[in-house]
Order: sequence, then C-alpha cells, then structure tokens
Amino acid sequence: MEPFYYEHKALFLLDQVKLPTQICYVKLTGHYDISEAIKSMKVRGAPAIGIAGAYGIAIGAQSIADNEMSGFLNSLENVIEVITATRPTAQNLFQTAGRMRNRAALEQNPYQAKSALLKEAKKIHKLQKELDIALNGYGAKLVPNGAKILTHCNTGALATGGYGTAFGIIRAANDQGKVVQVLATETRPLLQGARLTAFELKEAGIPFKLITDSMAGYFMQKGKVNIVITGADRISANGDTANKIGTYSLAVLARAHNIPFYIAAPTTTFDFSTPTGHEIVIEERPAVEVTHLEGQLITPEGVDVYNPAFDITPAELISAFITEKGVFQPGDISL
Amino acid sequence: MEPFYYEHKALFLLDQVKLPTQICYVKLTGHYDISEAIKSMKVRGAPAIGIAGAYGIAIGAQSIADNEMSGFLNSLENVIEVITATRPTAQNLFQTAGRMRNRAALEQNPYQAKSALLKEAKKIHKLQKELDIALNGYGAKLVPNGAKILTHCNTGALATGGYGTAFGIIRAANDQGKVVQVLATETRPLLQGARLTAFELKEAGIPFKLITDSMAGYFMQKGKVNIVITGADRISANGDTANKIGTYSLAVLARAHNIPFYIAAPTTTFDFSTPTGHEIVIEERPAVEVTHLEGQLITPEGVDVYNPAFDITPAELISAFITEKGVFQPGDISL
Repeated sequence: MEPFYYEHKALFLLDQVKLPTQICYVKLTGHYDISEAIKSMKVRGAPAIGIAGAYGIAIGAQSIADNEMSGFLNSLENVIEVITATRPTAQNLFQTAGRMRNRAALEQNPYQAKSALLKEAKKIHKLQKELDIALNGYGAKLVPNGAKILTHCNTGALATGGYGTAFGIIRAANDQGKVVQVLATETRPLLQGARLTAFELKEAGIPFKLITDSMAGYFMQKGKVNIVITGADRISANGDTANKIGTYSLAVLARAHNIPFYIAAPTTTFDFSTPTGHEIVIEERPAVEVTHLEGQLITPEGVDVYNPAFDITPAELISAFITEKGVFQPGDISL
Repeated sequence: MEPFYYEHKALFLLDQVKLPTQICYVKLTGHYDISEAIKSMKVRGAPAIGIAGAYGIAIGAQSIADNEMSGFLNSLENVIEVITATRPTAQNLFQTAGRMRNRAALEQNPYQAKSALLKEAKKIHKLQKELDIALNGYGAKLVPNGAKILTHCNTGALATGGYGTAFGIIRAANDQGKVVQVLATETRPLLQGARLTAFELKEAGIPFKLITDSMAGYFMQKGKVNIVITGADRISANGDTANKIGTYSLAVLARAHNIPFYIAAPTTTFDFSTPTGHEIVIEERPAVEVTHLEGQLITPEGVDVYNPAFDITPAELISAFITEKGVFQPGDISL
C-alpha cells in the first residue's frame, strides 16, 4: 500500500493515524496542509517524511508569485521553513529540503524552477524505491536461516514510500524462506507496530506475533529472538542513532542476550554534521498521546507525563548499519 | 483507598478494571463471584489476591451444608479449588488458602469452623497492614536522598489490601522528604501503572511522571532514575522472581546502567517449594487485552498476539529483597 502519490497538482496522502481501521487518502494541495500532515503524523517514517516534504516544497513552490528568481528563491525559503519545522529528528526531511533548494537554484526563472522542483520530488520518490530494493538485498543476506526477528515501530512501505527498510529486509528474507517468525512490538504511545506493522505483515503473509513493548526482554530470554532489526530517524557521525522511543531499550536487551542488533536506513539518514547522539534534539510530543487512546482518557485526570518521541542508541550497541550502499560497522562510517 | 472490605456477610470489592474513571465497589456474596473477580482482575496484586481469596474461602464455607466435619472439610476443598484455580502465579493465594485449610481443620464442627475461617480471613487482612508497615520501613531506609525512583505496575494499597509494597516504600520515603520524582511505567497491556499507580501517586501527593514502558531505558540513560523498586508475584527458592511482564526488561536495563533494582514483597510471596524461576508457570492471558483498549480494536482484525502476564527476573539481577522481616540478598534467603 502506497503512503502517498502525486496526481492533479496535489499530494494524496494515506492517513496513517486512521490505519488499520480506516484506509483513507487525504488530498493536500498546499505546503501548509503537508506540513500539518507531517506534524500530526498522518505520514511518518523518516524516508517517507522526506519524500512528502519534497512534494510539499514542490507544491508550495507552485503558488509563489514572484517573477524574479531572487524573489522566488526567497519565497521558497519560507516554504522550506514551513515544511522543515515539523519533525526535528527526521534527518531525511532536511536532506531532501536541501536537495530541493539546490535544484531550484540551478534554474534561470521561477517557471522553470517550479517545473524542476516537481520533477525533483518525483525523482526523490522513485530513487527511494531503488534504494530500498538495494538495502533490502544487503539486509536479507545478514538474516540467518530460521530467523526469529524482533522489530520495532513501522519501517515498511508506509514509512519510506518505497518498500521499507527493516520491514523490507524482513520481507526479502521471508521470500527467501529464512523467516520462522517475526515479533512486532506494538510501539507505544502511537502504536505504529500494532496499527501499521501488523497491518503490513498481515498483508505480506509473513508469520508474526504482536507483543507489547514490555515483552521484548521476556522473549529474548526465552530464545524467541535471534536478530533485531529496526530503522533509524537520524544517525550521527559517530554512529549514535536516533530512532523511535524504545529502540535504545531493545538494543540494551539485545546486547544482554548476545543477539545482533541492526539498524536499517538509507544513507540519507546519516547526518555527518552532528558529531554524536548527544547533539541530537529529542522531540517531546503532546501528553495526550500517552494519556489518551483512541480519544479516550486512560489515566486519572491531569496526570503529568513525559513523551519523548525518540531515543539515542549508542553506536557501540549496534552490530551494523544496513544501507543501500552495503553493510557498515559503526566504527567504519564514511559513506 | 481500600481495595475491599467485609460487611454484611459479603466482600465489597473495588472494581480495579474500572479505575480511575469509575470508583465502583461490587458486592460479592459467594466464592464463585470472588473467583471470577480474581480471574477478571477486578482485584489484582499478589497480596490483595491472597486476602480476597481468604475471604472467598470464608464466604464459600458459609454455604457448605455438611454437618459432619469430614464432609465439611471435603466440601471446603472444592471451595479452595474454585478460589485457587484463578491466577497460577499468585503465590500469596496458595499461601493463604493453605492457612485457611489448616485453620478449619483445627475445629471440632462445621459451625465453629465457619466462624474460625471468617476470623482467620480478617486476621490475614489485618496482618497484611502490619506487614506492609514493617516492609515499608525497611525499604524507606534503602531509598537515597534525592531519589529518582522508577516503579512498574501497581503495588499500592490496591495491590496488597494494606499500604502497598514498592508503593508503600515510595510513600514512606516521600514522607521522609527523600523523593525528587517517581517515574511510573504505564504497564501494558492492562495499564495498571497508568490507571492505578498514577491514581494512587496523585492521591498521595507524590511528585511523579507517567511514562510508557518503552521509555524506561531512555530515562535511565538520561540519569533520571537512581533506584528501581517493583513488587513480586512469586519468588522461587533461589530468588528468581516472577512479576508483571516487563519487570525482567527493567532489571536488565537497571543493571546496564548500574542502578540498584529492588524487589519489595512480603515473605508470603516466597515459594520454597519451587527451586528456581524455570519451574514457575507463566500465565498466558487473553489476546483481547493486547488487541483492544477500552473495548476498542487497536490492531488489524485477526492479528495473533502473545500475552504472557508475567516474566521471571533471575536472582542475580536483584540487588535485594525488601520484606517485612528485613532486607535480604538473593543469595541469603532463609526466612
């Protein structure tokens, strides 16, 4: 299932907040709409956010009235600002925004730039599918026969706009007959595992069980996990990795049980301008995500919560990074 | 808030499934009702289950028609069977059932036995309060000044029928001015932390934040936790401890961060007939607890789940056991 497609000057975006009970594409015709969709996690997953952001910039550019290139580029910065001020951890968003900015600057006039930006967004989208296929192939080689794979959050087609990162590897390994069972963590607070990964695993016919996040250690202790693969939102220069909250706990648990722990991410997720994980800003999301479920209060009234959306897994807990360019050790990053 | 009280030949039991949105006592007049309340977790927490079970046996005994003591004791076994065939991990239930059985056997006739059983149940209840006070006192001494305590599930008055185990320690330490902040894990799937512990922490005026289970590692890494205290459902002879699913993961995470990890439990939770954790049967609870929240489906239709209610924390990960008789090292259990 495609998380979005471009048609009739609009981005049609599958509302992932409503999955799996409703399959509902919303039509977004302006960059503010697309910014809002990213903020509210109608689209999520770092690569998918990057592509949606690229379309957002392309669509936002269409409405810029300036006839002069310098004015156009100034206005484009405002569009880019609206699009990037959404999810601070999503490295791909900043990458694709930079790419769109550079592409526009190559053109002679706003008319050409608008056309080039739309082509560039489509190219970024197409490229992601090629990246995912390459990444999935490298990853599947690392999956052992008789694999009992634990994965966290959602990293499927819904998360990348292509075939998925960690999920794509699982699918490729399953196609090769290597997979005994997948354990998908539900991934509180927003339940991307229960809602999205379970949905995609079921669609793909891959044998799996859904578990709560708190069960991961138990199943590792029981020998029900022999490989952990997750995605990443941002990877700093030293290999420290920001990913969905709970990833760090899984990495510590995997190490304690001698289970290899892999990060699957396109190279666009690497941010060499950020030296270590300490410099990555962790987004604190609204309390309502923890206190409410499906709009219903699950705690006493007025309870204070913490809701960091991500955590940082230190490079030393990561067995390898699986990218579209091959498999790298954390100490060996020079892509 | 009392989890139950005996009055007018009935057990009035606070329905913990409905907390915190509804405060609702149900009147239970027979042992089948009480058995059902234990199964459906209207009452939970090992010590509270033990006391509710004792009242269940006392109330069930009242309806036995046999005039001969041998017939009465046979029928009493049926009552005990109904009460104990509810939560296999709850060691206190088997302890109090044994105590009730022995108490009845001391009497000359069913009339006296019925009266003695009711007194015994009340005595077990009263004793729990005394136990909790002693346990809380020993535990509070272990809590450092400037304590940042992480706790899991619910271990308050609701869980013991007294003042609580881990929760009682937190309250006592807070009374002594030692507590900076408590982090309470929400405790999926049944959200005892979000629903019950948050409720009791709020009532007690203890500073706290609610977090999802997946955030525990993150906050340990950030230095926001300097002590972990949980309860226990059953402790085997070697110190391996069964407690709410997720406890084992927390113990591994605590060890990785050099944070002391304490188990607070009355000595009735120790089961010397079970040599190690390997022999403890883990209750697998209904899938609906994972797939639904507040009656609403949160996964795709027909998704398979695992739902172990407990896990086993090996003795070597436990810094000490805090009991009503003092503090013991796992290697030093001879109560």
